[in-house]
Amino acid sequence: MTKKPLILVINDDGITAPGIRALIDVMNDIGDVVVVAPDSPQSAMGHAITINSTLFVEKVTIDKGKQEEYSCSGTPADCVKLAIKQILKRRPDICVSGINHGSNSSINVIYSGTMSAALEAGIEGIPAIGFSLLDYNWNANFESAKHFVKIIVENALKNGLPKGVVLNVNIPNLEKKDIKGIKICRQAKANWEEEFDKRKNPQGRDYYWLTGKFVNLDKGEDTDEWALAEGYVSVVPVQFDLTAHHFIQQLNTWNLND
Amino acid sequence: MTKKPLILVINDDGITAPGIRALIDVMNDIGDVVVVAPDSPQSAMGHAITINSTLFVEKVTIDKGKQEEYSCSGTPADCVKLAIKQILKRRPDICVSGINHGSNSSINVIYSGTMSAALEAGIEGIPAIGFSLLDYNWNANFESAKHFVKIIVENALKNGLPKGVVLNVNIPNLEKKDIKGIKICRQAKANWEEEFDKRKNPQGRDYYWLTGKFVNLDKGEDTDEWALAEGYVSVVPVQFDLTAHHFIQQLNTWNLND
Repeated sequence: MTKKPLILVINDDGITAPGIRALIDVMNDIGDVVVVAPDSPQSAMGHAITINSTLFVEKVTIDKGKQEEYSCSGTPADCVKLAIKQILKRRPDICVSGINHGSNSSINVIYSGTMSAALEAGIEGIPAIGFSLLDYNWNANFESAKHFVKIIVENALKNGLPKGVVLNVNIPNLEKKDIKGIKICRQAKANWEEEFDKRKNPQGRDYYWLTGKFVNLDKGEDTDEWALAEGYVSVVPVQFDLTAHHFIQQLNTWNLND
Repeated sequence: MTKKPLILVINDDGITAPGIRALIDVMNDIGDVVVVAPDSPQSAMGHAITINSTLFVEKVTIDKGKQEEYSCSGTPADCVKLAIKQILKRRPDICVSGINHGSNSSINVIYSGTMSAALEAGIEGIPAIGFSLLDYNWNANFESAKHFVKIIVENALKNGLPKGVVLNVNIPNLEKKDIKGIKICRQAKANWEEEFDKRKNPQGRDYYWLTGKFVNLDKGEDTDEWALAEGYVSVVPVQFDLTAHHFIQQLNTWNLND
């Protein structure tokens, strides 16, 4: 590639999060970077979009990097739409989302704002990758993550991604020397077992906090959970055609038209 | 079934919407109904969950039906979690979501609060179906929808649904006599082409409204868009394992570990 690739950078933790700063840092080495990210944290927003209120966008300077940056009042999916339709002068060559502070492996992909941004770009026909580090701390160490992000983005730019597929990359919270490599995986059939912490507010009214623990009963060695537990970076190809094709034949035996 | 099934009813348009009233009406004929629905409209919330604020739940009486009802301050996915873990005395036999005011066919499944509620129930291992009528009006006519909802729910209770699959049902906005029947479909590869309506607020600051038009380039006669355009009710089996299994082999040829 003689011309530098145009790279759109998004996240869901907000434009000032250390995770997106680490991602921008790596992308500045690879291409021309435009950042369009939420002005506040949007974790667990799933694939929400803003249709009933207005969206504000500001050009901002967060650090001294050579990237161009825009802060947006909407969700991660809104940021992608705004970037592609309003802000960027041409279609980006790739969209990268993250690096998320915390895992988006297995079922978490469904709730993830990071992955929803990547999926939105994928729906628009743009190669897209979501990156997450298995450390929820604001001051997480993104140094080893940066190494693997670079390898994966360079490969995606070189090889391309088929229409309808985006990548969900999760990175263990380990020193680079302790990470065993990169593994292609399927989404583990793991779950949250929610619990609600019930309390009373000062007026005596009941309210709840959502809590829970993560349970993985899927012992497959081809899953993202297995790879991460073993010290690999997991890469799951993810699609937004949700059709359960394997069940169509069975469903056709139901008596729906008698 | 000698014992009446326990039916959990959810939606994303809010607990007072005519669509959920129509759904409750049909479900009261089939089983014991508990409604746990958002206290305000939550359309396009995708699979958002509430982790950074508190959830309130109130027992309410909206109409004279025999159902039990709870109004919740959270998203559709929150309602499902709260219903299963806090409100219901036993696991429901089925969860039905809707009837949504407006289509959730093709790519809309990704943005849909109605379908996110159904998916959340599916993740919890409960058979689940989302219903949507192709009419965005608050005063839409749900009469013919009710007929098809009943057939589909009775079939799902009789036949069961496999783990990991929920149904996405869309109903054309037609008189019952003009609906040709029920078709099992795949999700059409259709898209929104977004446009942003740029305006200035009274202080002179730019803001945007998200608008757009729906574009379907997928002419397959096995798609939900085709079925709906032809006057059929569309039923798409939907899964939350997002793994693009067909791309794993190709991805393994990338040079990620050199």
